[in-house]
Amino acid sequence: MDFTKEEILGILDSYDLDNITIATICSHSSLQIFDGARKEGFKTLGICLRAPPKYYDAFPLAKPDEFLVLDRYDELLDKVEELKAKNVIIVPHGSFIAYMGTDKFAQLGLPTFGNRNVLEWESDRKKERQWLVGAGIHMPDVIEDPRDIDGPVMVKYDGAQGGKGFFIAKSYEDFLEHIDDTKTFTIQKFLTGTRYYLHYFYSPIKEDGYTLSKGTLEMLSMDRRVESNADEIFRLGSPKELMEAGIIPTYVVTGNAPLVARESLLPLIFELGSRVVEESLKKFGGMIGPFCLETVFTDDLEIKVFEISARIVAGTNLYISGSPYADLVEENLSTGRRIAREIKIAKETGKLDEIIS
Amino acid sequence: MDFTKEEILGILDSYDLDNITIATICSHSSLQIFDGARKEGFKTLGICLRAPPKYYDAFPLAKPDEFLVLDRYDELLDKVEELKAKNVIIVPHGSFIAYMGTDKFAQLGLPTFGNRNVLEWESDRKKERQWLVGAGIHMPDVIEDPRDIDGPVMVKYDGAQGGKGFFIAKSYEDFLEHIDDTKTFTIQKFLTGTRYYLHYFYSPIKEDGYTLSKGTLEMLSMDRRVESNADEIFRLGSPKELMEAGIIPTYVVTGNAPLVARESLLPLIFELGSRVVEESLKKFGGMIGPFCLETVFTDDLEIKVFEISARIVAGTNLYISGSPYADLVEENLSTGRRIAREIKIAKETGKLDEIIS
Amino acid sequence: MDFTKEEILGILDSYDLDNITIATICSHSSLQIFDGARKEGFKTLGICLRAPPKYYDAFPLAKPDEFLVLDRYDELLDKVEELKAKNVIIVPHGSFIAYMGTDKFAQLGLPTFGNRNVLEWESDRKKERQWLVGAGIHMPDVIEDPRDIDGPVMVKYDGAQGGKGFFIAKSYEDFLEHIDDTKTFTIQKFLTGTRYYLHYFYSPIKEDGYTLSKGTLEMLSMDRRVESNADEIFRLGSPKELMEAGIIPTYVVTGNAPLVARESLLPLIFELGSRVVEESLKKFGGMIGPFCLETVFTDDLEIKVFEISARIVAGTNLYISGSPYADLVEENLSTGRRIAREIKIAKETGKLDEIIS
Repeated sequence: MDFTKEEILGILDSYDLDNITIATICSHSSLQIFDGARKEGFKTLGICLRAPPKYYDAFPLAKPDEFLVLDRYDELLDKVEELKAKNVIIVPHGSFIAYMGTDKFAQLGLPTFGNRNVLEWESDRKKERQWLVGAGIHMPDVIEDPRDIDGPVMVKYDGAQGGKGFFIAKSYEDFLEHIDDTKTFTIQKFLTGTRYYLHYFYSPIKEDGYTLSKGTLEMLSMDRRVESNADEIFRLGSPKELMEAGIIPTYVVTGNAPLVARESLLPLIFELGSRVVEESLKKFGGMIGPFCLETVFTDDLEIKVFEISARIVAGTNLYISGSPYADLVEENLSTGRRIAREIKIAKETGKLDEIIS
Repeated sequence: MDFTKEEILGILDSYDLDNITIATICSHSSLQIFDGARKEGFKTLGICLRAPPKYYDAFPLAKPDEFLVLDRYDELLDKVEELKAKNVIIVPHGSFIAYMGTDKFAQLGLPTFGNRNVLEWESDRKKERQWLVGAGIHMPDVIEDPRDIDGPVMVKYDGAQGGKGFFIAKSYEDFLEHIDDTKTFTIQKFLTGTRYYLHYFYSPIKEDGYTLSKGTLEMLSMDRRVESNADEIFRLGSPKELMEAGIIPTYVVTGNAPLVARESLLPLIFELGSRVVEESLKKFGGMIGPFCLETVFTDDLEIKVFEISARIVAGTNLYISGSPYADLVEENLSTGRRIAREIKIAKETGKLDEIIS
Repeated sequence: MDFTKEEILGILDSYDLDNITIATICSHSSLQIFDGARKEGFKTLGICLRAPPKYYDAFPLAKPDEFLVLDRYDELLDKVEELKAKNVIIVPHGSFIAYMGTDKFAQLGLPTFGNRNVLEWESDRKKERQWLVGAGIHMPDVIEDPRDIDGPVMVKYDGAQGGKGFFIAKSYEDFLEHIDDTKTFTIQKFLTGTRYYLHYFYSPIKEDGYTLSKGTLEMLSMDRRVESNADEIFRLGSPKELMEAGIIPTYVVTGNAPLVARESLLPLIFELGSRVVEESLKKFGGMIGPFCLETVFTDDLEIKVFEISARIVAGTNLYISGSPYADLVEENLSTGRRIAREIKIAKETGKLDEIIS
């Protein structure tokens, strides 16, 4: 019994909108989400397992006003009435959905920032590709049959957390040697270039700015993911030398580093973001709020997109008090704060129905 | 009919100095230049092709007050009277000159921030070298005859944008295999170390601070350029392995990443900047405003300079609201703002003739 | 005749606490220490050789109120009475102790921020290991006999500044080829992963926050060291190819780059910091103020600690006006400022005896 947007808006009708509480699971980008909510004047609630995470005590500006302590994340489903009474709006981040599971998340009868329909489009690589290619985005070629590998490819396991197990293969033999065939996987042509993770924000309700067919698009920041052990393993040997020594490069995200792009690429960066949003409006009513295009900038100054995250990404944690891009929008603006701001504006203009589902 | 400084100062005499407009081409570091000009109270004008770039709408704090729309950049020469009427001062960035061409830029009869004479010294690798070596700077050895290559060298095409086509060769055979002999090139000994792009600001009119024979030197920030595909191609193979597979590392700048240097290197960093400025004062009346030394820090903690940019570089785009260095000069100081500040101070103290040409 | 804590506190008793001067040697992280002291309202004094470093003139917010000019750093011992008259509290940074020498530093009869006893535990790799392993920290295995090398190891010379001479060996033969046997060294198993240098602050007197058995722990920032030439040498060849060409990768620190860690690792990060502090409290009365764990994050998301710095590290120079972590503690908080704040709070609450020795 998944909730429909209509049902959720029904719940929202019963809310005391002057006492909204912003809630999320204590992980991923939650410090920033709570800090931003506080800056915009909201109450905050942290969802956690077993006990409030002690590390929050070290960050007083990001510590939520209260905690909801669970034994398992799916117990959240049993706490819905309690949270409704607090006028809770859920801000989902990447780990939120990974921790709860897509199915349970769909059953969560609480007003949630963003569009629930995006889930089915981003959690399935085939539908994700259909969406992005439909938007006219250049994605790396997918190789359906591993026997067709005739140059460097990246093999990705579906639903893998943080790049766990991904590997580069240059031939079918390489592939056979490393594949874990108990898992489903996708083979993408390896893109040479430099990785940029582009942090956008799409508002369906803001009218001035970089306008789309409906609403506006912002570019708040960018990062490069720090991947263990791939980022520093060259100190030991080339991939081939390592392979011979039985050392396998891995692509587990351990953190993020800041960067900016050439200003002359901004038109293209906005163009790509726009197309993805426009296509989402057509396909499922729009991807609302923060999203990230995971890209490679080639030496032809083309931008290839290899994946999309349809919500706040952890790379924005670099920019708690602004970024080289957000600083040109407004001082002291994090993505977490931007989300809270969107909720605030929607509340004040009677448009919560356009950003909540 | 290139303009002389005297002619330009004549134009400036006719200006209403209480209504100066800062203008530049919409690219490279223009967001920062406009944001800085606005912060210092100037009107701003963006020069662009075909239509105002839409991405400015996403950055309200950096959006110029008005746009001048052209079909080709050299049409700027026809708009001079119009721009004079707006009391325009041009702030040239790296792409400004690349887009207009050195010859056309010399013919632009508008007051321009900085010293026009620097152009001939930086656009010609031989004169650039003469300047830097004259300043006592350690530059990588140049190899005149490719047959003399006996260890790693970097081959650079003259006037190449963003490192396009550069390559590393280790032997004459390597060189022959990769050289595009339709272009002129320079062969520099490859420097092993870590790259730092040092962002200085030289003011001929400021009297307190790190003083030179005339004026003062500031260090506002540093960056490392992100180069596609060289920065991440090690994930695929060693240079030798890649070469065998027909994959060529490339050095096209796609963006910039922040860093700081050991504090114990600051005396040397200032020493290098000072010498380059002092030599410029002797050779052509001084390099005014922002400049960048493109360096390698070796493991002997020596700093080798492989190139100079005599104006604002895109790496400063990381530091819209300050940097770990600028924050010790003054809060919220970007290089773009520093330029506007210089113009403001010069105006207030009657010294525009010292920073405009 | 090393000074005891009791003798130092006796000196402090004679101080005019409303006129404290914060002093350090002009290098390493001194700009930040002076800037932070100024922000907290303290007078500042820079200790330097031969003449005040001119680069301070370029950073007015970090320039100390006065300089003490020496010919050799150990002359500081002769200036003690003069400095006492100025109510000087010394803030030691990494280079302070390296420049003075551990023995001379112990003889310095001036109130010093932190616990002098930490010195003997961090300057001796065996005691350092005993401390960290005692705290339950995973350190890389040490190989006592080079003949036992059977996979990649890092060979480190004791007391080497900035990684000078460190090398990776994969076999005993490798080791023999590169070792400088005039020096004492340690052989650690090479850790594959990504390096994070974690900047903590331990306050024995602060009561609210992330509490330990006594006092509180803060996480202010993190960095990755920029190492010359190891960071960029892959552009030339794989380690093996380089070795054959007689080019040796080196690990000399030239600067620092910013990053953040996955939020889900924060509990572990605080756990590691806590354990190290708790063990220091047991072993020698506590490591007070800033410290740094030098770590590798593996692809299993484990954190291995390969070294500890028991005072302010240069990586904090990235964060003069805050960091993605410090910004959640308080706006505009550098580690340098945090030190000054600690002295201020201790003074106001009569607890200087707990943070000075």
